[in-house]
Amino acid sequence: MFNEVYDVIVVGAGHAGSEAAAAAANMGSKTLLITMNLQNIAQMSCNPAMGGIAKGQIVREIDALGGYSGIVSDTSAIQFKMLNKSKGPAMWSPRVQSDRMRFAEDWRLLLEQTKNLDFYQEMVAGLLVENHKVVGIKTSLGVEIKAKSVVLTNGTFLNGLIHIGDKNFGGGRAGEKAATGITEQLVQLGFESGRMKTGTPPRVDGRSLDFSKMVEQPGDVDPEKFSYLDITKPLTKQRSCHMSYTSEKVHDLLREGFDRSPMFNGRIKSLGPRYCPSIEDKINRFADKDRHQLFVEPEGWNTVEYYINGFSTSLPEDVQFKALRSVAGFENVKFFRPGYAIEYDYFPPTQLKHTLETKLVEGLYFAGQINGTTGYEEAASQGLMAGINASLKVSEKDTFTLQRDEAYIGVLIDDLITKGTEEPYRMFTSRAEYRTLLRQDNADLRLTPKGFELGLASEKRLKRMEEKHEEAAKFVQFFRETSVQPAEANPVLESKNSALVKQSDKMFKLYSRPNITIDDVRKFKAVEDYIQEHNLDNEIIEQTEIQVKYAGYIAKEKLNADKLNRLEYVKIPENFDYSQIKSMSLEAREKLKNIQPTSIAQASRISGVSPNDISVLLVYMGR
Amino acid sequence: MFNEVYDVIVVGAGHAGSEAAAAAANMGSKTLLITMNLQNIAQMSCNPAMGGIAKGQIVREIDALGGYSGIVSDTSAIQFKMLNKSKGPAMWSPRVQSDRMRFAEDWRLLLEQTKNLDFYQEMVAGLLVENHKVVGIKTSLGVEIKAKSVVLTNGTFLNGLIHIGDKNFGGGRAGEKAATGITEQLVQLGFESGRMKTGTPPRVDGRSLDFSKMVEQPGDVDPEKFSYLDITKPLTKQRSCHMSYTSEKVHDLLREGFDRSPMFNGRIKSLGPRYCPSIEDKINRFADKDRHQLFVEPEGWNTVEYYINGFSTSLPEDVQFKALRSVAGFENVKFFRPGYAIEYDYFPPTQLKHTLETKLVEGLYFAGQINGTTGYEEAASQGLMAGINASLKVSEKDTFTLQRDEAYIGVLIDDLITKGTEEPYRMFTSRAEYRTLLRQDNADLRLTPKGFELGLASEKRLKRMEEKHEEAAKFVQFFRETSVQPAEANPVLESKNSALVKQSDKMFKLYSRPNITIDDVRKFKAVEDYIQEHNLDNEIIEQTEIQVKYAGYIAKEKLNADKLNRLEYVKIPENFDYSQIKSMSLEAREKLKNIQPTSIAQASRISGVSPNDISVLLVYMGR
Ligand SMILES: Cc1cc2nc3c(=O)[nH]c(=O)nc-3n(C[C@H](O)[C@H](O)[C@H](O)COP(=O)(O)OP(=O)(O)OC[C@H]3O[C@@H](n4cnc5c(N)ncnc54)[C@H](O)[C@@H]3O)c2cc1C
Ligand SMILES: Cc1cc2nc3c(=O)[nH]c(=O)nc-3n(C[C@H](O)[C@H](O)[C@H](O)COP(=O)(O)OP(=O)(O)OC[C@H]3O[C@@H](n4cnc5c(N)ncnc54)[C@H](O)[C@@H]3O)c2cc1C
Repeated sequence: MFNEVYDVIVVGAGHAGSEAAAAAANMGSKTLLITMNLQNIAQMSCNPAMGGIAKGQIVREIDALGGYSGIVSDTSAIQFKMLNKSKGPAMWSPRVQSDRMRFAEDWRLLLEQTKNLDFYQEMVAGLLVENHKVVGIKTSLGVEIKAKSVVLTNGTFLNGLIHIGDKNFGGGRAGEKAATGITEQLVQLGFESGRMKTGTPPRVDGRSLDFSKMVEQPGDVDPEKFSYLDITKPLTKQRSCHMSYTSEKVHDLLREGFDRSPMFNGRIKSLGPRYCPSIEDKINRFADKDRHQLFVEPEGWNTVEYYINGFSTSLPEDVQFKALRSVAGFENVKFFRPGYAIEYDYFPPTQLKHTLETKLVEGLYFAGQINGTTGYEEAASQGLMAGINASLKVSEKDTFTLQRDEAYIGVLIDDLITKGTEEPYRMFTSRAEYRTLLRQDNADLRLTPKGFELGLASEKRLKRMEEKHEEAAKFVQFFRETSVQPAEANPVLESKNSALVKQSDKMFKLYSRPNITIDDVRKFKAVEDYIQEHNLDNEIIEQTEIQVKYAGYIAKEKLNADKLNRLEYVKIPENFDYSQIKSMSLEAREKLKNIQPTSIAQASRISGVSPNDISVLLVYMGR
Repeated sequence: MFNEVYDVIVVGAGHAGSEAAAAAANMGSKTLLITMNLQNIAQMSCNPAMGGIAKGQIVREIDALGGYSGIVSDTSAIQFKMLNKSKGPAMWSPRVQSDRMRFAEDWRLLLEQTKNLDFYQEMVAGLLVENHKVVGIKTSLGVEIKAKSVVLTNGTFLNGLIHIGDKNFGGGRAGEKAATGITEQLVQLGFESGRMKTGTPPRVDGRSLDFSKMVEQPGDVDPEKFSYLDITKPLTKQRSCHMSYTSEKVHDLLREGFDRSPMFNGRIKSLGPRYCPSIEDKINRFADKDRHQLFVEPEGWNTVEYYINGFSTSLPEDVQFKALRSVAGFENVKFFRPGYAIEYDYFPPTQLKHTLETKLVEGLYFAGQINGTTGYEEAASQGLMAGINASLKVSEKDTFTLQRDEAYIGVLIDDLITKGTEEPYRMFTSRAEYRTLLRQDNADLRLTPKGFELGLASEKRLKRMEEKHEEAAKFVQFFRETSVQPAEANPVLESKNSALVKQSDKMFKLYSRPNITIDDVRKFKAVEDYIQEHNLDNEIIEQTEIQVKYAGYIAKEKLNADKLNRLEYVKIPENFDYSQIKSMSLEAREKLKNIQPTSIAQASRISGVSPNDISVLLVYMGR
């Protein structure tokens, strides 16, 4: 029935597929998005939230390039928080709670408004491949659709198997069918496939909770937002989350189910996300901790459904229930549905090029959880990159990749394809060796020109970015050039216990002092006048502050990077005791201990050992 | 994990289940609604519309009793039409186009705000039955939940099998899993089960349609609404539908797929809805018609998805596609998904009591499509009645049933349980022998007092109803008592070509004349003064008009009913030729011809032969 040849077919409308489809279509490719259920576009399978540490930066990067995730995160947000605001700006990470239904609906409506993009609801059961080149897909009903390239974004659906206690059944997500056929065909084509698992906590009825026994977690007083475009607005009202804790009693109750746990009785063999562990995992691995935090997150503006962040579990539902009832505020909790784990097929991403095209089959791209990652943001960014590259390929243009010092997206993909991953890969700031460069505030500066060149970011977006950074640069220049007299400076410095000045000094110097903030320097008349006169908004002021205060760090980081390169071939002593290096990530210590690399070079290639770990190791070895 | 005993468990959150759960909970029963996917509550499986001929009356009845369908139909409406406005008020039937997503979301939010109502997401795999009494349910994960009564509303999900061309696969709806286990257990318990089928048309991309080649179908200029409550408001803006036609060419193209049609090649054996036939059915059965109407209905306020009403089909998707492309305006149509047919298990409803409780298992109720009906409204009304009766039973109160002269709901249930049905049962005005009594305008008068007594309709609702009908009665009385002089009456009568009066006459008499409308009598000063003085709204004025103008019809109908009763035992001659009686429904003629009843009594008991058909038959036989 499809008598045309599509430029790009995207299989699956999760976070990866939705971004891939939007990107390819917006770059002018005739694109088809085919997915099992058009009513579940960009469904949040797990927590109703976008962003967070390192992930928030990725969303900003997607937005800067011209993707949709940032816009939808804004329009569907019910709470905004800038995490790590007390740390340096490299660590600032935007995060929103989302209205789950709004998120999916807003994504769908945005996609519907995208030119060049068609939709089709069906399960894809296989690829059409000729001479190691993809030429289309085949649905489970036998419909063949031709295409010049195909992006697979099947998420957790490939031979998905859901576990709760000692029960298991096929499914791609609770209440949804698994997808079959694709893995088998790819394996036949020579691909290596593996199995991973992830889990999700119970959903509960907010009417059954006693919030007075929990700690309220409101959103930021001055909420910001994700998109650099002005088509979205910061929230004017927000919903609060709440926090509670597990206890020894809760842990004991959970332990009662361990013999029926698919995690512990060997029924689940695949690896789960180390950094997003189930509650049983946490109890097991951190046996000395007598409590764990739980965040009680509303699923939307109006719904009474709540997500219990931190209580991911695949224990039998009666065990989940009994244990949760012992948590403060949950004495009368009622379940909407129990937590569960899901096992699914993935393809070790070392089989991909930097463009996310597979090495084996030309024109075939993989993006998202199918590559062994976890998280909406990781999935969405890969989708964007695969969509871009599929589109570039069919129009016979150069590929588009991002370097490790250009974007978290660059780090993500470089990690995936050079190191692979044996457990669900999640982004962390620690994975980025140039993280002072890869901030959430400058993603537009880093990426919007590239997005514009691709035909993805609009001119309006480019103009906004340029204006913002020009204004900030001018304001920085102002601080460099403008002096302040002791009479004006000292009262401010005194109030901050900062050394007084004896003679007029450049404002830049004073402002650079660690505990002197924008609020302090605004007390200097010239500064406040400048702000008023140039009508500077918060974004520009913040940008300026970062440029002034953190210039030093950035320089230092570059130096460190160079050092890494020089020292790459240093030998590591035999039987080196990694357990002493507490400042190295747990994952790295475990991996290094197991593999015992003989050189730094070898160490740095091990999956899970980040450049940062290597740097810590070098310091420890006295280099 | 559920350590309490529920009063009522409702299985399935379709239209039947949602009303059942709301009713039971609102009547004070501890209720659990358990369904396969909590994100698909009150999903519209097929057309995005509520109401229509006879169905609109049912929605008004549900609302009058205190159900939610009317409210949700109002809040999610994108277009309102009062159908049959040119006919007598017994035929007036409200209908809305719905925003599919809004409909489901509004239902969910209403249910969430309902006290005594818990939710659980899981597939129910069986019932717990002890001594022919239901005591709970068991989920597919093995969770047992106790209850004093259970309402089954599984819709099209029981062993659902989806057909497209010569392909078929299990599913309860496109993209959703089928439910298994329940039929098998019920059959073991002694229930008779059967198979039915229904179908749905393709969904298409509105951006690919040329609406200029179709006829626009806007909503009413003065839209009304469903709910008698003032918490909903009539629409102030609306979306239009459009109309197009099939053609001989389209029919020829469709016929090319007949050999691959599951309908014609014998793959589907079960019966489909005669009055909602597939396009291939229509072409086949009405071979002389050279075109059929298609209504192109938007699926919501903002989506580009459209529903092609009238093109329900299970032909192979390439045939559907080729044929639809030959319809005016569809030359470039793109599919979101093809049409399909679904076969599912139902239980012949003769196995039920008037309360919808099963005769075999105490405390077990069936409602909705599981009883062999089709349509959201039919399902919702059964759910309401089953929920009410389950709740009454557990609180040991008298049962609640409606007579055939009290409500369409009464007709529906009486038909189902006394006649059964061999094909999907749909409501028609012709099924109601007292249809002049069962109007959409007086459902509140008929049913709200009952709903209030049940504890379902609020006092506010009762008060509104009483006020409206008191005001109308007073206004009728005013017409009866007030005279008008020839000088004032005759210009109005003359303008309507109505006989002039020579002396003062009662307004009631003039207003009763068929072509004299409210607009005419409002020209009499006393009438307009009365309206202004009493501040009468349209609802009351309309009610008054009906009371004045149709009093005669109502009396006549009562007479007719009596006649039916007296003449019930008249013999029918052998080999009577029913095909001559064109004014009898086609279904009745076919059934009578096949079964050849020997008496009117026997005839009247045959499924598909309505009291109205009997009345026609009697007239024909000269009685
Ligand atoms: C139970 C569960 C728990 C999770 N827990 C966490 C967590 O704690 N932390 C975290 O960061 N992430 C978690 N995730 C992961 C997160 O949801 C995913 O990383 C993210 O959704 C991946 O996006 P994706 O686009 O790759 O795939 P998905 O969001 O899974 O989307 C895949 C899409 O492809 C469609 N599809 C699949 N196969 C086919 C086919 N053959 N034909 C047509 N369409 C197809 C599906 O219908 C779906 O729309 C969890 C996921 C699940 C299911
Ligand atoms: C393809 C299709 C075409 C149709 N065409 C028409 C038409 O042309 N005209 C018309 O008037 N009507 C049509 N209908 C019928 C209309 O959709 C139904 O009559 C109406 O939805 C029935 O409502 P219900 O509540 O009985 O069941 P449904 O709306 O089917 O809801 C059933 C609910 O029960 C849940 N469920 C089922 N089994 C279980 C279980 N074991 N455990 C837990 N939950 C369960 C399901 O998830 C679902 O939520 C069509 C339906 C389908 C599927």
